[in-house]
Amino acid sequence: MSSTKLADQSFVLKTPKGTRDRNPFQMRVLEEVFTVIQNCFKRHDAVSIETPVFELKEVLTGKYGEDSKLIYDLEDQGGELLSLRYDLTVPFARYVAMNKIKTIKRYQIGKVYRRDQPAMNRGRFREFYQCDFDIAGDFGLMMADAECLRVVYEVLRDLNLGEFVIKLNHRRFLDGLFSACGVPPEKFATTCSSVDKLDKARFPYSFSPSPRPGKMSFKQTFACSYSEFVFFFTFRQAPWEDVKLELLQEKGLSPATVELIGEYTQITGGAEVLDKLAADPRLANVVAIQETLKEMQTLLSYCQALGIMDRLKLDMSLARGLDYYTGVIYEAVLKGFTYNDVQQATTMEPVTQVLGKTKKEGKKGHEVVEEGFQEGAVGSVAGGGRYDNLVTLFTPGAPKVPCVGVSFGIERLLAISEMLTKQRAASGDADGNKVRATETDVMVIVAHKGLITPRLEVAKELWDAKIKTAFSHKNQPKLLDQLQYCENTGIPLAVLIGDSELQRGVVKLRRINARNEREVARSELPAEIRRELAMLRKE
Amino acid sequence: MSSTKLADQSFVLKTPKGTRDRNPFQMRVLEEVFTVIQNCFKRHDAVSIETPVFELKEVLTGKYGEDSKLIYDLEDQGGELLSLRYDLTVPFARYVAMNKIKTIKRYQIGKVYRRDQPAMNRGRFREFYQCDFDIAGDFGLMMADAECLRVVYEVLRDLNLGEFVIKLNHRRFLDGLFSACGVPPEKFATTCSSVDKLDKARFPYSFSPSPRPGKMSFKQTFACSYSEFVFFFTFRQAPWEDVKLELLQEKGLSPATVELIGEYTQITGGAEVLDKLAADPRLANVVAIQETLKEMQTLLSYCQALGIMDRLKLDMSLARGLDYYTGVIYEAVLKGFTYNDVQQATTMEPVTQVLGKTKKEGKKGHEVVEEGFQEGAVGSVAGGGRYDNLVTLFTPGAPKVPCVGVSFGIERLLAISEMLTKQRAASGDADGNKVRATETDVMVIVAHKGLITPRLEVAKELWDAKIKTAFSHKNQPKLLDQLQYCENTGIPLAVLIGDSELQRGVVKLRRINARNEREVARSELPAEIRRELAMLRKE
Repeated sequence: MSSTKLADQSFVLKTPKGTRDRNPFQMRVLEEVFTVIQNCFKRHDAVSIETPVFELKEVLTGKYGEDSKLIYDLEDQGGELLSLRYDLTVPFARYVAMNKIKTIKRYQIGKVYRRDQPAMNRGRFREFYQCDFDIAGDFGLMMADAECLRVVYEVLRDLNLGEFVIKLNHRRFLDGLFSACGVPPEKFATTCSSVDKLDKARFPYSFSPSPRPGKMSFKQTFACSYSEFVFFFTFRQAPWEDVKLELLQEKGLSPATVELIGEYTQITGGAEVLDKLAADPRLANVVAIQETLKEMQTLLSYCQALGIMDRLKLDMSLARGLDYYTGVIYEAVLKGFTYNDVQQATTMEPVTQVLGKTKKEGKKGHEVVEEGFQEGAVGSVAGGGRYDNLVTLFTPGAPKVPCVGVSFGIERLLAISEMLTKQRAASGDADGNKVRATETDVMVIVAHKGLITPRLEVAKELWDAKIKTAFSHKNQPKLLDQLQYCENTGIPLAVLIGDSELQRGVVKLRRINARNEREVARSELPAEIRRELAMLRKE
Repeated sequence: MSSTKLADQSFVLKTPKGTRDRNPFQMRVLEEVFTVIQNCFKRHDAVSIETPVFELKEVLTGKYGEDSKLIYDLEDQGGELLSLRYDLTVPFARYVAMNKIKTIKRYQIGKVYRRDQPAMNRGRFREFYQCDFDIAGDFGLMMADAECLRVVYEVLRDLNLGEFVIKLNHRRFLDGLFSACGVPPEKFATTCSSVDKLDKARFPYSFSPSPRPGKMSFKQTFACSYSEFVFFFTFRQAPWEDVKLELLQEKGLSPATVELIGEYTQITGGAEVLDKLAADPRLANVVAIQETLKEMQTLLSYCQALGIMDRLKLDMSLARGLDYYTGVIYEAVLKGFTYNDVQQATTMEPVTQVLGKTKKEGKKGHEVVEEGFQEGAVGSVAGGGRYDNLVTLFTPGAPKVPCVGVSFGIERLLAISEMLTKQRAASGDADGNKVRATETDVMVIVAHKGLITPRLEVAKELWDAKIKTAFSHKNQPKLLDQLQYCENTGIPLAVLIGDSELQRGVVKLRRINARNEREVARSELPAEIRRELAMLRKE
């Protein structure tokens, strides 16, 4: 996202606002993270589907409430009116409805688009990945819901990003509590949205690409230099006092009601939360609470069987923004990472692969964009819940297709993984202290002038043997430059060729780190390289 | 792409024109094809990058000549003017220029967007994948070009789609030939575009989503029913006579010049083509030809060393549409597939994964969209060439960053791979004659009522052991339905649990196809499943 003002061009050379390129180092981390996530989804018997990046505008209309104004529309160039997808959930529901599917367990990884304004941003880019796992079908109570929670658990466990907690609530719990507190039904939604802020205040994050003037009463602004841009990190700090004020003044609830909401939304904990709610005389006659208590007991017993109870935390303040949820809702939070950790990590410089010449990536081009992490928490990294009515919106009159799912916030998981990868490299855990951007095994190196054709012939033999092979594209590369290329990009082996060796049918096989080499018959080369690679992996 | 008119909605439930969803079967094929291609790119020491799906409108402006009108613009919702990317090459050049990169060998796989009108379509969807491999840097003559050709060779060899040929030409050969034939320099480009049609006529393909009225002189229209839409396949048939007419009447060339062009563009073959051109007295004084002859001799000697000469065919009619090519150009064509093959294959019905219940995918929802294949040829599946001036367009005055690359036409490769996968399944080569959409190893099956918690506990144990495990989400699934699910989705093993076995600490492990089962201690289950899977793979 560096910018360069061109002399002869009238525009700044940059990516669009809120988007970025991903450099080779970031792509390697992305590949590793996606592999972990995909493996988990496949382990759970999920199929994969893909939908277009844009949908008919009408498909998205009326699905996102207030957030609809953040949808990117395509220009009307004649023909259909189109919009970029805002998430993967609505296109999934459209797919299920269109193909009259009754049951499917699917995953989808893809980019989604949101014209987030600085004033309303949520710590996200305008183009970012989502990674969704959903189960559609009319099944036993809480069976699919429990599997989704297990998927959240497995992904976060396998990504190995430290401690995490999965916060859990139920939309009908909120409705029941609001009702018991004396909130009139028509104000459930708006009360919910105020409570949503309270939750975010406990794990606050968000950044805006430019400083946000005014309305800073709940906020502090931190400046964090990134590349040639300056990103301003704005942390929401909405303690109960502020939410209380909003409920009283803006939402017009009575002081007694607001006081009760304050008490109930503080309730968090394990299975004992259900006992507490069950024993509460004020809730005894609230049907929504009593029915939901039984459902949640079932869910927790399933989570017990699935071995994930110690990661769950019932949290009566968890509200989730989107309108379409109808049942269980959940959100996962990493506990081990602070804003400072990540900021520190960005000062390291990843080495990128280059040809013929070494080039370190500096602050200018390829820096990792970190989102806003604050001391003690990095915000939610996964969220989801049950949405039983979304598919029916596309097929009014058709039988319901109940759904439950989870979406992983990949950008944040990637930023943390990039940080850890760099830390490991810096601490010498990774091969040769290098963060590698390629998987190349060996470089064919010429010991003296020329040798173009033999260089190509040896490379061909290695490629045919499925060995990942590099060579210099220069006519007369220097020996030192070629060795340096191996060191810089982490290639562990080199095959040195010279006229006299070629005449004797041999080459030299060299270990780059140990700097030792030995002669190998050319016919034995692929086998010898495999042997060396196996030995290096063991060491 | 089935359409459903909604009673209560004012729009047809469909994907946007020229786009489609990809179903689970298609996604499995896509994953396999991408893995082969990515493995090849990695074998060649390439890094990977990613760019946003949209760019500043100005980045794309002036890069695609006439085709610029096919670019999708985003609506001006305030802020920057944006367009969806038209290919991956221009964003790559922007990336190289912006980050001041001197040398890089990168690949990128992503979707690109073209508002192709029926009248000018090229057998493509409006949203389709490109799969690009490019080498940027100032290197030895033809070194990088030769490696690109080797990459085309390896990908098509590894995809195992039968015979193929890589057609090869050089932009300066065309310039030189036109000059020798008497075409004035200002008409080189337009002559080139006529010759481009001749080439396409030899391997003709293209489809339009609606019938194309008028201007049918060179064309025949075939209707091919797909889903509830009708796709019309339009085959270009532009024999030399028609191109000749165009050159004479529209382009205003002299009959002698056109006659010569007709002769030269018929020249195709191996290395002997260079000898033929070298011996031609009419070309002896044409500098462009004489210089390019030497370059091409170098290239062919490198291709010899890389073992790909038998797949290359010099073809003086190969022109390539895009303006930015400056040197070698190439295009790969599969020889073994006919339009009829593919059409026949679409009548097979892939089985998709469903939960709790079997569902065959019929013609309605999930059919494979085949592009227009014609008897004897399926058109180009990869193309590319050298473009030395593109990066400089973004950084006038900066040193040149010469580039050469190739783009694989993934949609066509996928359609053929889908066809072959279905054929193999039909002929019984695949496991259990099924085209699988999942990789699930085992299903936990309950032998009688209830057993929800034990079902979840066993599944948990298997997931913890990284075994891909399914179970029914129904409270009381029928035994037969669960076994049927395994058969339909190709799950090879089942673990049957029942009260009496659980009390004895055992379960039954069943091979679905052989229909035999044996008792296994629950503690040994993961190890026993692995043993069975290993045996099944050997069989």
